[in-house]
Amino acid sequence: MFEATKVGRTVDKASFKAQQEALRTQLILVQRELLQTDIPVIILISGVEGAGKGEVVNRLNEWLDTRGMRTFAFWDETDEERQRPRYWRFWNALPPRGNLAILFGGWYQAPIEHRFNSLCNDAELDAELNRIVDFERMLISDGALIVKFWFHLSESDQKARLKELSRDDRSRWKMLPKKGKFHEHYQDYEHIAERVIRLTDRGTAPWYLIEAEDRRYRDLTVGKTLLHAIKVRLSQAPTPEPPPTSGNLEVPEVSSAQVTLLDQLDLSVSLDKSTYKSELRALQTELNELAWDAYNKQRSLVLVFEGVDAGGKGGAIRRFTNAIDARLYRAIPVAAPTDEEMAHHYLWRFWRHIPRAGYITIYDRSWYGRVLVERVEGFASDAEWRRAYSEINQFEEQLIESGTILLKFWLQVSQEEQLRRFEDREKVPYKRFKITDEDWRNREKWPEYKAAVNEMVVRTSTEYAAWTLVEGDDKPYARIKVLRTLRDALKEALAEKANKDDSYSPCAGKRLIS
Amino acid sequence: MFEATKVGRTVDKASFKAQQEALRTQLILVQRELLQTDIPVIILISGVEGAGKGEVVNRLNEWLDTRGMRTFAFWDETDEERQRPRYWRFWNALPPRGNLAILFGGWYQAPIEHRFNSLCNDAELDAELNRIVDFERMLISDGALIVKFWFHLSESDQKARLKELSRDDRSRWKMLPKKGKFHEHYQDYEHIAERVIRLTDRGTAPWYLIEAEDRRYRDLTVGKTLLHAIKVRLSQAPTPEPPPTSGNLEVPEVSSAQVTLLDQLDLSVSLDKSTYKSELRALQTELNELAWDAYNKQRSLVLVFEGVDAGGKGGAIRRFTNAIDARLYRAIPVAAPTDEEMAHHYLWRFWRHIPRAGYITIYDRSWYGRVLVERVEGFASDAEWRRAYSEINQFEEQLIESGTILLKFWLQVSQEEQLRRFEDREKVPYKRFKITDEDWRNREKWPEYKAAVNEMVVRTSTEYAAWTLVEGDDKPYARIKVLRTLRDALKEALAEKANKDDSYSPCAGKRLIS
Repeated sequence: MFEATKVGRTVDKASFKAQQEALRTQLILVQRELLQTDIPVIILISGVEGAGKGEVVNRLNEWLDTRGMRTFAFWDETDEERQRPRYWRFWNALPPRGNLAILFGGWYQAPIEHRFNSLCNDAELDAELNRIVDFERMLISDGALIVKFWFHLSESDQKARLKELSRDDRSRWKMLPKKGKFHEHYQDYEHIAERVIRLTDRGTAPWYLIEAEDRRYRDLTVGKTLLHAIKVRLSQAPTPEPPPTSGNLEVPEVSSAQVTLLDQLDLSVSLDKSTYKSELRALQTELNELAWDAYNKQRSLVLVFEGVDAGGKGGAIRRFTNAIDARLYRAIPVAAPTDEEMAHHYLWRFWRHIPRAGYITIYDRSWYGRVLVERVEGFASDAEWRRAYSEINQFEEQLIESGTILLKFWLQVSQEEQLRRFEDREKVPYKRFKITDEDWRNREKWPEYKAAVNEMVVRTSTEYAAWTLVEGDDKPYARIKVLRTLRDALKEALAEKANKDDSYSPCAGKRLIS
Repeated sequence: MFEATKVGRTVDKASFKAQQEALRTQLILVQRELLQTDIPVIILISGVEGAGKGEVVNRLNEWLDTRGMRTFAFWDETDEERQRPRYWRFWNALPPRGNLAILFGGWYQAPIEHRFNSLCNDAELDAELNRIVDFERMLISDGALIVKFWFHLSESDQKARLKELSRDDRSRWKMLPKKGKFHEHYQDYEHIAERVIRLTDRGTAPWYLIEAEDRRYRDLTVGKTLLHAIKVRLSQAPTPEPPPTSGNLEVPEVSSAQVTLLDQLDLSVSLDKSTYKSELRALQTELNELAWDAYNKQRSLVLVFEGVDAGGKGGAIRRFTNAIDARLYRAIPVAAPTDEEMAHHYLWRFWRHIPRAGYITIYDRSWYGRVLVERVEGFASDAEWRRAYSEINQFEEQLIESGTILLKFWLQVSQEEQLRRFEDREKVPYKRFKITDEDWRNREKWPEYKAAVNEMVVRTSTEYAAWTLVEGDDKPYARIKVLRTLRDALKEALAEKANKDDSYSPCAGKRLIS
């Protein structure tokens, strides 16, 4: 695989000068064109030690218009990053549509280094690479262009280059700790790199292997290849969708065959006032303590509240937050996305609010909008919401893996109860703002929403992130059920010594809890 | 996830009768329509024990026109199957375009059972599931519709059903060995099933979970869901391609920057006649013995010969086959595909000829046509040949994993030498048939072929399946290099006790060698 990066390609000074000039002009032009599109461009810079990755990044910053571009280097982790699921830092670095981001190291850095330092084996590396393939595929489905560069040197060239670097005053300091290590184990490193490249080299996100010995060849080739890749992408129609598939279970036309999970809820259950009050008080006391316990144990909590309009989400959330120290939680009401949010993948705006270890985020509506309102109202295409189920499962799996406790509630009320609440809201002045024409329109699509909720539960209620369906007609009953479920889940999770599946991804970072 | 399969859905007898009739007519009609398309339909039947998967298969066979359909049950393995890479049996079962195949168990059966019997752990199961996702995605990119049914029962329903089955004369015999086992470990089985479904439930190949307690509900729902899925697929335009990407390395316009691997070959090397003769004899003797040794050790050998026209592939192959017992090898000359081959994925025609353990297949041209002639001549679309690199790497990885020894040769001659050989062929009557107008046309595309060869080597020369580039201007030299490479590789491989990476896929079948 690397043979072609050891053939001794060079560019003389004069040719470099002449071709650089033309290239820079074209890069700026294409960048301006890009701004008018909805394509985010992600440039990944990887390669062997001594290949001059930093120089390439500097060069690109010199050639490109930095207003439409940002650069991120992934080496050490900040506190903020260490205390969140691993991919949080990458989500933060994703460029908005029309912009470029240069990711130095990117999501390839950690797996390669971990494997090189024998912190994981090949099978574990493969698992991480599969995650990367899925992640890149998700971004590409969303319109992204991913350009992956690998810079390579032959064994002797690397040796010479590292020697040269260790003599240079400006780079000597960064050579000290690893000095020798890389070229002493050149074969091992190359072996790992080959595996990584082979398993992540896909038609839609290919690797470009670049001979790094001659700096002029290296930089010109990067610039020209990047230019070409963007041009090809711009010349194409908007992202086509993958072949459409019906995921609908078609059930016989008899009512006995059309029972759903929601139909099974007994909405007549209720709780009398005094039981409610005493239970509420007891639960809130317990939850307050559990939240501090979670804080001390560095376990974060993510709560998702979904439900029909006027289903009682707000009331249930308030009963929980009233119990918790305000320093520990943030409640995120999810409405229409902002401009900035629209310029990213739909999961981006939820990643932003993922809590640090020990903290709590409450989503009042969530990423499930993709398979509920966006599906029913046609805001997302068929292919978009269909692929969202596995994207969501993968997202939630990452939360769990990092030690997050995740709970998801669906609050259901009957059509009659909803009507009563709507009318009620219209009568009470301070509640009137809560009811809009949209609520009335949604109500007409009851069966569509019901089908969407059912499919959502089937495809995303997993062992590690199950849905709790809440009978919502009686508010006291619903609130107590929510709080009790929370209490039980927190108790159980905090009693565990650590996440059971400890060995899952040793190839890319330690877990938060131990 | 399985909650929705335990809600007690039923269909009464009269409704079943009425709806079945309409359904059958529609199924036959849609099947006829399907025959006119290039869509192969793959129906996977899986689920818990006792759910009546066999009954469903029988029902589909009753409802559908069996002329456009075949059924395969994957439980025990034949000798033929056991002696080949695991997926060989699945490739053999893939339906041609316009046809249906019902795969009973399919590629999900072995991983689930292996995990259930603790032959592998979760991480190993995940690795196998990732392979499945890639495999299904590859088929879908090729136009296939994959419909995956999972039949489920609640714990008590399963218990009752298994009891009922063990009393029935016709099914009692098949219950004996596993009796009790499944329902005693209902939770374990469901846990594994959830993981399998969650990780393989993708927007383009979703799972349909079916409540299996009521037979009428079960069968009607399968029929209607299948009908709907095919209809949706038929209503769409031909498979759109994923977003196009340039994979081209754009190099500076200086000749020193455009050196390729092929340029590095020293085509002036040659061998004198007497050295050639003595070396040839010695190598052939060794190879004969090594081939028998491989046979005894059940290691198969796959050889790929590619090269420029008149590069000397035929001659090199004959020098090898002359040395080998004719019972041990098959040489497959690869020309234009047959009708039957055209009706399948492009790799299908190569899978057909994969040798049994201990045997040899020699491909005179191969699957690399996809990224060579099909790329250059435009027979494959950009997206098709670009994704072929990773498809090919995955295919070859499977060969290696099953214990196959794989060698790939590229025979290169200079343009001048090729011209000399072309002219020579035209003069000699018995060689004239070997030269066609196409050869002359290909010659004009020398630079395009060169670029294609270079990218092929970069993307598919892997540690376990490296390309050997052969200097072909001097035939004796080329032949000896091929034979010597073969000898060394065979010697090395046969000296190994077993494949090193023994633990790779314990989740889906044993290796051939031990």
